[in-house]
Amino acid sequence: MYKYTDYVSHLQRIADVNCATALLHWDLEVYMPKGGAAFRSQQISTLAGMAHEMFTSEKTQKILHSLLDGNNLSGPERRNVELTLWDYQREVKLDKDFVERQATARSEAFNKWMEAREANDYAVFVPQLQTLIDLARQEADMRRYEAEPYDALLDLYERGLRAAFLDKLFGESRDKIIDLVSELNLTSLVETPNTLKQQYPKDAQWDFGIELLKALGYDFNTGRQDISPHPFTIAFSPQDVRVTTRVKEDDFLTMTWSCMHEAGHALYEQGLPSEQYGLPLGTSASLGIHESQSRLWENHVGRSRSFVKVWFPELQERFPENLGDVTPDAFYRDINRIQPNLIRTEADELHYHLHVIIRYEIERACINGNVSAGELKDLWNAKYKEYLGLDVPDDNRGILQDVHWAHGSFGYFPTYSLGSFYAAQFYHAASNRINGLEEDLEQGNYTRLLDWLRQNIHCHGRELLPGDLCRAVTGEILNIDYFIDYARDKYSTLYARD
Amino acid sequence: MYKYTDYVSHLQRIADVNCATALLHWDLEVYMPKGGAAFRSQQISTLAGMAHEMFTSEKTQKILHSLLDGNNLSGPERRNVELTLWDYQREVKLDKDFVERQATARSEAFNKWMEAREANDYAVFVPQLQTLIDLARQEADMRRYEAEPYDALLDLYERGLRAAFLDKLFGESRDKIIDLVSELNLTSLVETPNTLKQQYPKDAQWDFGIELLKALGYDFNTGRQDISPHPFTIAFSPQDVRVTTRVKEDDFLTMTWSCMHEAGHALYEQGLPSEQYGLPLGTSASLGIHESQSRLWENHVGRSRSFVKVWFPELQERFPENLGDVTPDAFYRDINRIQPNLIRTEADELHYHLHVIIRYEIERACINGNVSAGELKDLWNAKYKEYLGLDVPDDNRGILQDVHWAHGSFGYFPTYSLGSFYAAQFYHAASNRINGLEEDLEQGNYTRLLDWLRQNIHCHGRELLPGDLCRAVTGEILNIDYFIDYARDKYSTLYARD
Repeated sequence: MYKYTDYVSHLQRIADVNCATALLHWDLEVYMPKGGAAFRSQQISTLAGMAHEMFTSEKTQKILHSLLDGNNLSGPERRNVELTLWDYQREVKLDKDFVERQATARSEAFNKWMEAREANDYAVFVPQLQTLIDLARQEADMRRYEAEPYDALLDLYERGLRAAFLDKLFGESRDKIIDLVSELNLTSLVETPNTLKQQYPKDAQWDFGIELLKALGYDFNTGRQDISPHPFTIAFSPQDVRVTTRVKEDDFLTMTWSCMHEAGHALYEQGLPSEQYGLPLGTSASLGIHESQSRLWENHVGRSRSFVKVWFPELQERFPENLGDVTPDAFYRDINRIQPNLIRTEADELHYHLHVIIRYEIERACINGNVSAGELKDLWNAKYKEYLGLDVPDDNRGILQDVHWAHGSFGYFPTYSLGSFYAAQFYHAASNRINGLEEDLEQGNYTRLLDWLRQNIHCHGRELLPGDLCRAVTGEILNIDYFIDYARDKYSTLYARD
Repeated sequence: MYKYTDYVSHLQRIADVNCATALLHWDLEVYMPKGGAAFRSQQISTLAGMAHEMFTSEKTQKILHSLLDGNNLSGPERRNVELTLWDYQREVKLDKDFVERQATARSEAFNKWMEAREANDYAVFVPQLQTLIDLARQEADMRRYEAEPYDALLDLYERGLRAAFLDKLFGESRDKIIDLVSELNLTSLVETPNTLKQQYPKDAQWDFGIELLKALGYDFNTGRQDISPHPFTIAFSPQDVRVTTRVKEDDFLTMTWSCMHEAGHALYEQGLPSEQYGLPLGTSASLGIHESQSRLWENHVGRSRSFVKVWFPELQERFPENLGDVTPDAFYRDINRIQPNLIRTEADELHYHLHVIIRYEIERACINGNVSAGELKDLWNAKYKEYLGLDVPDDNRGILQDVHWAHGSFGYFPTYSLGSFYAAQFYHAASNRINGLEEDLEQGNYTRLLDWLRQNIHCHGRELLPGDLCRAVTGEILNIDYFIDYARDKYSTLYARD
């Protein structure tokens, strides 16, 4: 007979191992000397295997069944145990050897991807990527699926998500986005110099980023920011949630808006209930919901008129040489430029989703066994030509640009677009429910918005499935129109045809 | 039936967990936000408990006995297995609960020590310190000892070391050091301003430290330097050996000589055989031998005439305002000032050992049950008065100055003095064996010295017990006279009586 406290301490021990693994990863991307790669990869693999072994042990099963058979659980306790059972049933399908092999292959592929990036040569990365694809296909088989292997992986990041649903959602959003772009008058942009693409000193950018993080509500007592090649957020506990950023001296947009993006992720993690550390109710609802938080802060707060009103005067003071003669309107336009480009992380709010859809189509074909790693480059380049009208000049600006596949993450990219669509719907709800939200934001007061997110989304952890959470927060299921309406409203004003 | 490869992979898995724990520690001291302390302490405790459980498992015992009963081991393989059996027999005496309780108490005590440092008030730290003392006494009982409990802890850091031996060694060294100091003419020092105690800009100090580390042979491809309140060296694998330092703007000595000290530790770790990762032959011989490497580079290389010859001209260029008008002789004297002071880490080469002896006497009394944590402050202050003639003005410059007890490390301090004594003996041997060593050092060429250390000490890992290693390298057992002769030779010239 087990007690709930046995369950908690068992799950928290596993969380301790997972957090150590997370730190091994963070360090690898932020501070580890190059030479440490091989042993680090072994260490990550060992710890990943151990956590998996602990979680899929007979002990876990016994604890869960013993608790669910009893009548001593409160509502939230029962929900935790039920969700853990669901996780258990999912994870028990993989054995420890497979998990360790996959972790090793991922570390090796990550290092190879870095090497390929340095050589700007996709061919360097192909064998390792093929290994990861093969492992992901095996994983899908072990996890089981109904319609297609790719569904088994989608389900890992967004419980219940299926490719059939995405086909419809992405088809609709692609058509509506392409329509919307075609309605805009973008010709003026070509001639206007972009005020964000000047030399902005590194340290001054960094300082502004820190101030911005603080202003949005990110707590430095339980967090910190570092530099990494690819910005990310990672939590070692609800009391230690870190963000990273990168600074490009010739592009002010990169660091500042990545700070807001990662702040959105981090505010979510810092808002999860501390006392539920290691338990489902202390975990985010899904990757799509996670991304909704980053997009909400990056786009709905960060690319708004109110943001310009609050921050532009200060930016003019901090960067008088760059912005002294720039008008707020020009700055607003420059943070909302619409232009097809090659790099997903630098894409505008509209074209962004075409980048995601390309990745979705490619990885789905891989996982379903229709193409091999060697064929992906041509496929990638053809799709960029078709969807965005762009020729890909080299691999670093093409198929090597994203780290996700090197991490073995297939089925992850779609959650980015889901996140944007959720963000629009959540922000619409927040605007309706919070009286005077716009006035708050125009004064740089983000407290009530954050509180609303905390109460309606963050504090619930994984209590609800993502779709149910969306309905609970907004009154309806995911509806692409909130995003399209928001985008049309903003961009058709900004780029009105004469 | 187990194979040697089973032994290796079992031990390396444990090493992986220990390295993750080491990273949790490094991060805690270097980058972790304050709020992360509580969960971090839990994570460290869990991983320490797991590593202990894995190592003391029946599986370990079975592997070891199966291998030792067979005849398939090479000489080095057998040595590894024998040493592991010795470790196993030592560790199996503690149970996992105790190890976890101790790890938790250590993390809590560390945080409390930090708090006490901030308040400059030893009383804040007393309850946690008493807990650690009680746990250490329990540990000594579990580990067993012949003469006194303190011996069981000494043995952890320096296999075979006993308090009775230290009484003799420390008694002799204390008398000889006090004699030597009394022979020196230190009156001139009082009036001469110390060229090292000026304002040296932080960044310029840091840059010089990095150059120095490189020059000594520290490999940044498998290492890095960061800032921490207390400099230390830590290895996450032979390919990832990190050092930390601290920079005081008003004291040039602190950072530069701590860099050389930590470089000595790190060169040792980087010189351990990579293929023996996680095995005894890939581990340092003892803490005393470890410290011999740091002291050799810090003192015998770093506080020498040859160091001044090589580096002083460059320092004059880097710090013209501070050193432009200083003579090499004055600089040499200032890096070799003899003066009793309150802080161990800032002590000169002679008084240093009095600091260690005070700690040795105090912690021995604690562990043997003769004094309690509450009484230590008075004891400390009385001994500083008696041995160094100093009044301790406050706790931060007194009993709170060192982190070791907050880490639960009792029996560790003596290895510092052992290290200095070994260093003198090793350096004497190196001078005899390496033709033209002095000329090399005068040209800033440290390669042959490092190679000699690598071949005679580093590459052997734990193959020999520390005493045997000393005999193998120098032809005799530890002999305090090498240190005394070295010190007399240097200081009686520098501070000759008229």
